[in-house]
Amino acid sequence: MPQLRQDLVTGRWVAIATERAKRPSSFSRSAVVSVQPSAQCPFCLGRESMTPPEVMAYRQPETQPNTPGWELRVVPNLFPAFGPANQEPVQSHVGPYLTMTGVGVHEVLISSPEHQQDIAELSLVQVEKIVRAYVDRYNAHRENPAIQYLLIINNHGKEAGASLEHPHSQLFGIPMVPPNVQEELEGVRRYHVEKGRCVYCDILATEQKTGERVIAENDHFLVYAPFASRTPFEASILPKWHASHFEAMTDDQRKSFARALKELTARLYRGLNDPPFNFYIHTAPNHSGADLDYHWHLEVLPKLAIAAGFELGSGIMINVVTPESAAEFLRNVDISAAPTAAASPALH
Amino acid sequence: MPQLRQDLVTGRWVAIATERAKRPSSFSRSAVVSVQPSAQCPFCLGRESMTPPEVMAYRQPETQPNTPGWELRVVPNLFPAFGPANQEPVQSHVGPYLTMTGVGVHEVLISSPEHQQDIAELSLVQVEKIVRAYVDRYNAHRENPAIQYLLIINNHGKEAGASLEHPHSQLFGIPMVPPNVQEELEGVRRYHVEKGRCVYCDILATEQKTGERVIAENDHFLVYAPFASRTPFEASILPKWHASHFEAMTDDQRKSFARALKELTARLYRGLNDPPFNFYIHTAPNHSGADLDYHWHLEVLPKLAIAAGFELGSGIMINVVTPESAAEFLRNVDISAAPTAAASPALH
Repeated sequence: MPQLRQDLVTGRWVAIATERAKRPSSFSRSAVVSVQPSAQCPFCLGRESMTPPEVMAYRQPETQPNTPGWELRVVPNLFPAFGPANQEPVQSHVGPYLTMTGVGVHEVLISSPEHQQDIAELSLVQVEKIVRAYVDRYNAHRENPAIQYLLIINNHGKEAGASLEHPHSQLFGIPMVPPNVQEELEGVRRYHVEKGRCVYCDILATEQKTGERVIAENDHFLVYAPFASRTPFEASILPKWHASHFEAMTDDQRKSFARALKELTARLYRGLNDPPFNFYIHTAPNHSGADLDYHWHLEVLPKLAIAAGFELGSGIMINVVTPESAAEFLRNVDISAAPTAAASPALH
Repeated sequence: MPQLRQDLVTGRWVAIATERAKRPSSFSRSAVVSVQPSAQCPFCLGRESMTPPEVMAYRQPETQPNTPGWELRVVPNLFPAFGPANQEPVQSHVGPYLTMTGVGVHEVLISSPEHQQDIAELSLVQVEKIVRAYVDRYNAHRENPAIQYLLIINNHGKEAGASLEHPHSQLFGIPMVPPNVQEELEGVRRYHVEKGRCVYCDILATEQKTGERVIAENDHFLVYAPFASRTPFEASILPKWHASHFEAMTDDQRKSFARALKELTARLYRGLNDPPFNFYIHTAPNHSGADLDYHWHLEVLPKLAIAAGFELGSGIMINVVTPESAAEFLRNVDISAAPTAAASPALH
C-alpha cells in the first residue's frame, strides 16, 4: 500500500507511492547532449563586457575589473527578478488587491572560467571559492534594511531551469521572508515548544543512528535523504553543530561544506549520469537576532519527476523512489576517481 | 521595477518580473510532434482488457462492460498512488517521524475513444459527458469515511506529466484535506471575518468590473487570469453564483461549465499551438457541511515555465507575463472555427 510520510519540520505530507516504485538506476540519463562552449557565452573569459560590470571577483593580482584574470566573478543579473535595493518596498492597492514594489538584489555568481565544469567536476579549491563567494555576497547585503531575506540558489541543467549553460549560482535578496522558510521557522518553534530541542538536531541524531538514509558524512556535515523526500534522490546537507546563520561558518567548516557539496553533486553526476537539479540554502532571516533556534542547511532537489496536476492542486508530492533506496544507491556510487573533463570525456 | 502581487485568498506573493517580460505570442510552441495512435494504447477501443476492469462507463445500449461500445470509461489506475479505500488510514511512528497508510482511490477517466482529441477538440456533447463523469465519480466516493478529499485533475501533454497520450483525467481520493485547499479555506474564513463577504465573490465582482483580466464569460461562469497569476496564462473558471460544492451543479450549470472549459482549452490550443497544461478542481472537503463559505472553481496552469531553485526554495513564483497581457491575448484568440482533427490536420 502507498505510504504517506510527514515532514517533521513543516508538517507537510508526501506520498511515497511504492506501487509505482522504480529502481534507482532507472533514473540515469541515457544520453547526455555534448555541451560545447558557446561562441557567445557571456560568462566565459574575455566576454566580461557582455555582462553588467562585476560587483565582486576573485582575481589574479594586478588584473583589472571586467577583464580576464578572474577565478570567480559576480555580476548583477541582466534581467533582474528583484531590484533595485536602494529603497524601501512600497505597498499599494489595486482594487481589493495588494501589490509591493519588487525591490531587492539579483546577482549571478559565475562558478569559474570553465564553461563545462560544474561543482561535481571542479577542483575542491575552486568549490571552496564558490562557498566563500556565497558568504561574501551574503554579507555584502545582509545589513540592507530593504532586504528581509537572502536566498542562494543553483540551477544545474536546462531541465532544472538553467537558462545559460556556463555553471553559475544566483543570489536573490527579497523584501519578505519567503513562505517556505517561514514554514520551517514555525516548525522549528513548534517543535521547540513541544520537546525543548531543535528539530534538525533531532533529525541529525536519528539519521546518524539508523544510517539507512545517510548518503555521506564528514567532520562537520551530514548528507542524507530526508524521511519525507519530495522527489527521487532529494538530499540535505546539514551542519552537525547547531547553527542558525549560514554565514557564521569558520574557515574549517566552510571547507567541510565545500567538500560535502562537491561529493554529493559528484555522486549524482556519476550515479545518474549528470541529472538536472536545483539546490538552495535555507538560513535564518538576515535581520533576525531572534531566530537562533533555526538550523541552516542546503537542500538538493534533482529534477527527475514532473509536478503535475495532483501535486499542483494539492501541494502533496508523489515520490516514486523511497529515500532509503535512493540513499543506498547514492552511498554506493564510486566517486574515488571523481570525473574531470580530461579524465572522462565520454560523460560530456 | 518588478512588481510583487499578493493572492487575495491565500496571502501568497508572486513576483511579476516585468524586466523579463516576453510577448505572449512568444510562448507559442513552434512545432508539435505528430501523435499517432499507439498500437498498444490501453485506452483505445478494443484494448479494454489492458486496463483494470471498468468501474463506470457511458455506453451504447446493450454493450457489455469492458468491451467496445463505450463513449467514456472510468478504470482504476493500474499503478495507484493511493488505495485501497475500504479501510481507515493507520498512522504509525518511525523514530520521531510519522507515517500514514496511503488509503484512498485513484481512478482514470478516459475522455472518449478518440486517441488524439482532447477537450479543446472534442464535441461539446462529449465534454458535457466528461463533466458529468467528474460529478458521478465524485458522488461515488464522497460518503466514504476514509476519504477526506476528492481531487479531480487533468494533465495535458507530456511536459505536463501526462504519461499516456490518450486524453484522460484522474480522480484522487485521499485521507486528508490537502494543504493547498486548506490554505484557501483559511483565506476564505479570514476574509469572511474581516469583510463579511466571500473573497471569491469579491474577486468575481472586481474582475467583471475592470474586465482587464477577463478571458471569457458565459451565463454561469467567469474565466479570468488571476491577479497574482503564478505562471504565464494561468486561468480560473469561477461560478458566478456562490457555491461551495462542485457536485451540486444543476444540469444547466454543468453544461455552461463544459462550455467554459472547452472554450478556455480551445483558446490555449489555438493561441499557443497546443501547450501542455494541468488543471484541477478545488471544491469544499467532502465531509464538511461547515464549509459553505467556500467557493469552488477550476484552476488551469499552462506548463510554460520551469519552477527552478528560487521558486522551490522560496515558494514564491516568478511569472514573466502579466495576467493582463495574457488575458488580452487569450480573449482575442479566434475560436470561431474550433479545431477538429478533420478540419485542421496541420495542428496535429
